Amino acid sequence: MGQKVLFFGDAGIDDAVALTYAYLSDDIDIVGVVADYGNVSRVQTIANVQYLAKVFKFPSGVRIIGGAENPMTGEQPIFYPEVHGVYGLGPIEPGTNAGVIENFFEIVKIIEEYQNELIIVNAGRLTSLATLFLLYQSLMKKVKAFYIMGGAFWVPGNVTAVSEANFHADPIAVRIVLTYAKNVTIIPLNVTDRALVTPEMVNYIDYKGKAPIIKPILDFYYHFYKSRNPSILGSPVHDAITLMACVREDMFTYRTLPVHIVLEDGTTARGQSIADIRTYIKFDEQEKKHRIAFDFDYNFFFRDFMTVLTGETFT
Amino acid sequence: MGQKVLFFGDAGIDDAVALTYAYLSDDIDIVGVVADYGNVSRVQTIANVQYLAKVFKFPSGVRIIGGAENPMTGEQPIFYPEVHGVYGLGPIEPGTNAGVIENFFEIVKIIEEYQNELIIVNAGRLTSLATLFLLYQSLMKKVKAFYIMGGAFWVPGNVTAVSEANFHADPIAVRIVLTYAKNVTIIPLNVTDRALVTPEMVNYIDYKGKAPIIKPILDFYYHFYKSRNPSILGSPVHDAITLMACVREDMFTYRTLPVHIVLEDGTTARGQSIADIRTYIKFDEQEKKHRIAFDFDYNFFFRDFMTVLTGETFT
Amino acid sequence: MGQKVLFFGDAGIDDAVALTYAYLSDDIDIVGVVADYGNVSRVQTIANVQYLAKVFKFPSGVRIIGGAENPMTGEQPIFYPEVHGVYGLGPIEPGTNAGVIENFFEIVKIIEEYQNELIIVNAGRLTSLATLFLLYQSLMKKVKAFYIMGGAFWVPGNVTAVSEANFHADPIAVRIVLTYAKNVTIIPLNVTDRALVTPEMVNYIDYKGKAPIIKPILDFYYHFYKSRNPSILGSPVHDAITLMACVREDMFTYRTLPVHIVLEDGTTARGQSIADIRTYIKFDEQEKKHRIAFDFDYNFFFRDFMTVLTGETFT
Amino acid sequence: MGQKVLFFGDAGIDDAVALTYAYLSDDIDIVGVVADYGNVSRVQTIANVQYLAKVFKFPSGVRIIGGAENPMTGEQPIFYPEVHGVYGLGPIEPGTNAGVIENFFEIVKIIEEYQNELIIVNAGRLTSLATLFLLYQSLMKKVKAFYIMGGAFWVPGNVTAVSEANFHADPIAVRIVLTYAKNVTIIPLNVTDRALVTPEMVNYIDYKGKAPIIKPILDFYYHFYKSRNPSILGSPVHDAITLMACVREDMFTYRTLPVHIVLEDGTTARGQSIADIRTYIKFDEQEKKHRIAFDFDYNFFFRDFMTVLTGETFT
Repeated sequence: MGQKVLFFGDAGIDDAVALTYAYLSDDIDIVGVVADYGNVSRVQTIANVQYLAKVFKFPSGVRIIGGAENPMTGEQPIFYPEVHGVYGLGPIEPGTNAGVIENFFEIVKIIEEYQNELIIVNAGRLTSLATLFLLYQSLMKKVKAFYIMGGAFWVPGNVTAVSEANFHADPIAVRIVLTYAKNVTIIPLNVTDRALVTPEMVNYIDYKGKAPIIKPILDFYYHFYKSRNPSILGSPVHDAITLMACVREDMFTYRTLPVHIVLEDGTTARGQSIADIRTYIKFDEQEKKHRIAFDFDYNFFFRDFMTVLTGETFT
Repeated sequence: MGQKVLFFGDAGIDDAVALTYAYLSDDIDIVGVVADYGNVSRVQTIANVQYLAKVFKFPSGVRIIGGAENPMTGEQPIFYPEVHGVYGLGPIEPGTNAGVIENFFEIVKIIEEYQNELIIVNAGRLTSLATLFLLYQSLMKKVKAFYIMGGAFWVPGNVTAVSEANFHADPIAVRIVLTYAKNVTIIPLNVTDRALVTPEMVNYIDYKGKAPIIKPILDFYYHFYKSRNPSILGSPVHDAITLMACVREDMFTYRTLPVHIVLEDGTTARGQSIADIRTYIKFDEQEKKHRIAFDFDYNFFFRDFMTVLTGETFT
Repeated sequence: MGQKVLFFGDAGIDDAVALTYAYLSDDIDIVGVVADYGNVSRVQTIANVQYLAKVFKFPSGVRIIGGAENPMTGEQPIFYPEVHGVYGLGPIEPGTNAGVIENFFEIVKIIEEYQNELIIVNAGRLTSLATLFLLYQSLMKKVKAFYIMGGAFWVPGNVTAVSEANFHADPIAVRIVLTYAKNVTIIPLNVTDRALVTPEMVNYIDYKGKAPIIKPILDFYYHFYKSRNPSILGSPVHDAITLMACVREDMFTYRTLPVHIVLEDGTTARGQSIADIRTYIKFDEQEKKHRIAFDFDYNFFFRDFMTVLTGETFT
Repeated sequence: MGQKVLFFGDAGIDDAVALTYAYLSDDIDIVGVVADYGNVSRVQTIANVQYLAKVFKFPSGVRIIGGAENPMTGEQPIFYPEVHGVYGLGPIEPGTNAGVIENFFEIVKIIEEYQNELIIVNAGRLTSLATLFLLYQSLMKKVKAFYIMGGAFWVPGNVTAVSEANFHADPIAVRIVLTYAKNVTIIPLNVTDRALVTPEMVNYIDYKGKAPIIKPILDFYYHFYKSRNPSILGSPVHDAITLMACVREDMFTYRTLPVHIVLEDGTTARGQSIADIRTYIKFDEQEKKHRIAFDFDYNFFFRDFMTVLTGETFT
C-alpha cells in the first residue's frame, strides 16, 4: 500500500509527468485529483484529468474533482498556451468534457475517508486549497501533511524577476494556506528549476515503453524551454518532484523558516516568497514556520525518476 | 408560499431581528441559515443559530450551515462584544453547540433544490459567499438574486471614517462577489443606519407578544448605540432591512452603478465602497454595475416592520 | 498695503483668473509666483507666468520661480490640454521662455524677507511645497498660513470618482505637506466646484475693461465645462476662490478635522482626501487637524469677485 | 588634483571612515558634505560634520550643507543609536551646533562651479538627492556620475530580510533618483557587507597615527556587529567603499540592469531592490538601467584601504 495522495493541479504537462510517476510507483496511491484553473482554464483541466484517468487507468474509487475557476484576486486568470499547449498537454488533444463539473465539496469525503494518513500535494495555484482553510479548518487538521510546489527563495522567479507562477497567480490564497496549514513542505523553484529531465532520459523512458505519453508531452515542453534558453539541458518537472517529495524526503535539504508573501499588486514583487536567512535573526517561538526545500540531490532524483519510469533499477 | 431565502449572517442581534421578521412574515421562507465568523466567532454563531432555530421553530427542512471561520485577508477576525454582547445576542446566553459543525458544502443541495427561485441575503461578512464564486460559478447562476448588507456610499462608515464593518472585515471577498455575482442589490449604511427601531416600537412589539426575544436584544443594542451617540433615537436594524428588501423592493430608491472596493491594507480607506456619481461620466456598457439602495422611505419601513412584528396592520 | 502672498500654481486659466483678482485687488500683494508642472509642463508654465507678469504689470520685485518638474510618484505628469488649452491659457499663445529656469531656491529669500506676514497660496500640485518641508522645516515655520486648493470631502472628485486633480497627481506630496504644515486651510472641490463665473459675469467684467484677458480664457474654459456637462451655468474658478480665501475668511464655513490621504496606486481611491465626520468620534488631542472649507456663501463670492474685477461696488 | 566629490551622508561612523579615506587620499577632493537625517537626526548630523570638518581640516571652500530632515514617506525617521552611538559617532561627543542650519540650496552653486567634473556620492538616505531631481533636473545633468550606497540584490538586507537601511528608510526617494539620474553606480550590501575592516587593521592604522579617530569609532562599531553576530571578523565600511568606488572602478564586478524598488508599506519587502538576473530575459532598449556592483576584490580593497590610511604601500 502506498502513501495516499490527494493531488491538486492544473493538469498541464507537469502534472501529467507527476501522475505518470504515481501511476508507475508502488509508493503512491492517488486517491483524488483536483483540477483547478491554471495554465489553462478549469473546463479544460477537468477534461485533461478525465483523459489522464483513462491513460493511467485510474481505479474507479479515484475521484476527479473540479476546483477553483478563478483566483482570489478578482482577476481573470492568465493562461500560458505557449508553455503547455493549447489544451495544456502539449500536442495531445484530450477532448472536452460533457458539461460543467462542479463537485469540489466531494473533497470532504475523501479527507474524512483517509483521515490522518492523507497527504495533499498542491502542484498548481493555491486557490482551491485556501478555500478549505476558510470553511473546513477542523477537517484540514486531519490531513497528515501538505507538499506545495511554489515560490522561489533567493533565486529568480519564472513569471517575474522574483516570483514563481503558482504564488504570483494568487498570492492571497498562498497567504491563507501558509497562515493556517500545518506540516507544510514547500518545494520551490530553488529545487524544481533544476529537476531536469533530458531528451536522453525521455527517449530511454519511451524506449522502455511503460510511460504512455511521456515522450510527446516532454518533447513539447523541452521545445518551449529550449527556445527560451538555448543552453538548457532538459525540462524541469516541477510537479513531479513535488509529488516525489512526499515519499522521498531524503532527496532534499530543508530549512524551516517563516515565509512572507508579497501581495503588492501589479508589480515585480507580487507573489514573491521571502524567507529571512540572516544568521543573526532570532525568530519568535510562536512565529509560524514552514519547511522549505532549498536544495536537492540531483543524482538521487535521476535514479529514482528513471527507476520508476522505466521499471529498471538505476543505481 | 413566500420567497425562498438562504440567509448568510453572523447571528448577532441584527440577524436575530431579521429572522424574527422572517418568522412572522408570510412573504419569506427561510430555507437555510449560514453562520459565519463576524461579530463573534463561528463556533458561537453556529450555536446562536441553533438557539434561534428553536426560538423561531425552524421547520425540519431548514438547514443550519457553518460558513467561513476566517476572512480572506489571512487575519484573525476582530470581534465586537461591546456591540453585540459576549455571545453575540446581547444579554441572551444561547448555550454552545456540541462539537464542530463543518458542513458548508451542503449549500450546494439547497441552491440546486430551489434553483431559479432562491434569493441569497448576505447580512454578514462576504467570505463564505465569495468562495462559492470561485468554486461553483455555474451553480451560482441559478440563484435568482443577491441582497447584500454592506458598504457606505458618500456617507460615513461604522468602522472607519468611510468603511462599513462587513466590507472592511474582508474587502477581498467583497471584490470577488461584486466581480462575479449577477442581480445584486446592495443595502448600504446610507439606508441601514437610518432604519431605526425606537424603544417605543420595541415596547409595543413586546406588548403584542408575537416576537419572542426582540425586547431583550434590542434594549441591549440600543444601550450600546445610545452610549456612543446620546442623541440617537433607536437601533439601526441593518440586517432586517436588508432581508425586507428582497420582498419590499418599493421601499427603496436605487442607483445602478459600478462599485469600486478599496483594498489598501491597514488604513482608513480599506473596505471603502466607491460609486461614481459624477453626472458627466459615461460608463462602459461592458462595465459591471450593481443596484445600490441610496435612500428609502422610513414610513414605509415603519409600517411594514410594525405590521409584521405585531400582527396589527399599520397604515 | 495688502496681504503678502507667495503663489504656487501651474499657470493655467484658473491661475490667471486668480492673478487677475490679485492684480485688481488692493488687499493682496503677490510677492512671487512659483510655476510648477501641472496642467501643462513646467517649461510652459514658466513661460505663462512670464506672459502674465507683463499683462498684470508685475512690479520688479515680484519673483518668478520655477518649481517642480515632476511629481514624487516617479511618474511622468499627465497633462490636460483639453481643459486648459495647448499652452495652458486657453486660446492665448504666451510664447516660450528663453532657456531653462531653475531657481527654486530663491524662494528662501522671499520667505525670509516677508517672514511672519507671508501667506502661501498653493493652487496647483503640492510637489514643490512638499520639498520645502523636507529641507527647510524651520524656515517654513515663518510662513503665517497656507491656503491649499485641493481635495474633495464627501463630494465627487474631478479626476476619479473621489479624487481631485491636485491631490491625485501627487498624493505623496500632499501627505508630506499635511503632516508638517501649520495653519493650513484647505479649499476643496466642495467649495471650488460651485464658485462659478457665468458668461454674463464674464461679459460684464469684459465690458468694464479692467480685467485684460478674462474674456478669452474664461470663454474657452466654459466651453470645455459646457461640453462635458451641458447644464453647467459657468466656469468654476478653483484657484481664484482659494486666493480670495486668504483675505475673505468670512466667505466660508469651516470644519477642523484630521485629514487622511489615500496613496494606493493606480486606483479610483488614489489621492482621495478623507475627513472623519462621524459625530461620535473623539479625536486624539495630539492628532494633526486642518481647517477645511466645507461650504461658502455664493452671494458673498459673487459680490466680491464682481466688485474687484469691475471696479464697481456690488452689494 | 583629485576627483571632485560632493558627499551626501548622515555623518555616522561609516561616513566618518569614508571622510578619513578622502582626507588621506590624493585622489579625492571633497568639495561639500550634505548632512541628512539618517542614523541620527539632522541637527546632530550637521553638528557631526562640523566636528569632522575640524578633525579633517576641511579647506575653507568646503561647504557644509544641511539636507533633508525627514523622509518622503511622511514618517518620523527611526534612529539607530545602538549601531552608531547616541550622537552617531560611536563614543565621540561632537558637541552640538549653534542654531538651525538650513542652506540646502547652496548646493546649486557647488554643482554649477564644478559642473561636468563633479561626482555625487550618496552614502545615506536618498531624500535630499531626490528633491534635486524634482526641482533642478537640468542642473543635475551637469553632475558627471552618482555613486549610491544602498540596496541588496539577491542577498539579505540589514533592516528586513531583503531590505537595506538607506533604501528601506525612503523608498519613494530611491524611486525618484533611479528614475531620473544618469550614470548611476549602485554599491549594495552584496559588496559593502563584505568590506570588512578587522580589529587588526584598525590597530595597525591607529599605530601609524595618520587617521585621527578611526580607532574609537571602529572599535565601537565592531562591538555592535560582534554582539549581533559573534563570528563576524570586522566592521563593514559601507560608505567608505562607496566613496572608494568613484576612484577605484576596477575593484568591482558590475552588472547593468533595470532596478525595481518595492514601495509596499509596512512589510518585509518595503525598500527591496530587485534586479532581474534571468538569463533568458531581454530588456527593452528604452528601459532605464543602472550599474550595480555585484562583487568586488577584497584584496584590492584591503591593499588600497590600508595604503591610504597608513601612508605605507601595501602590495
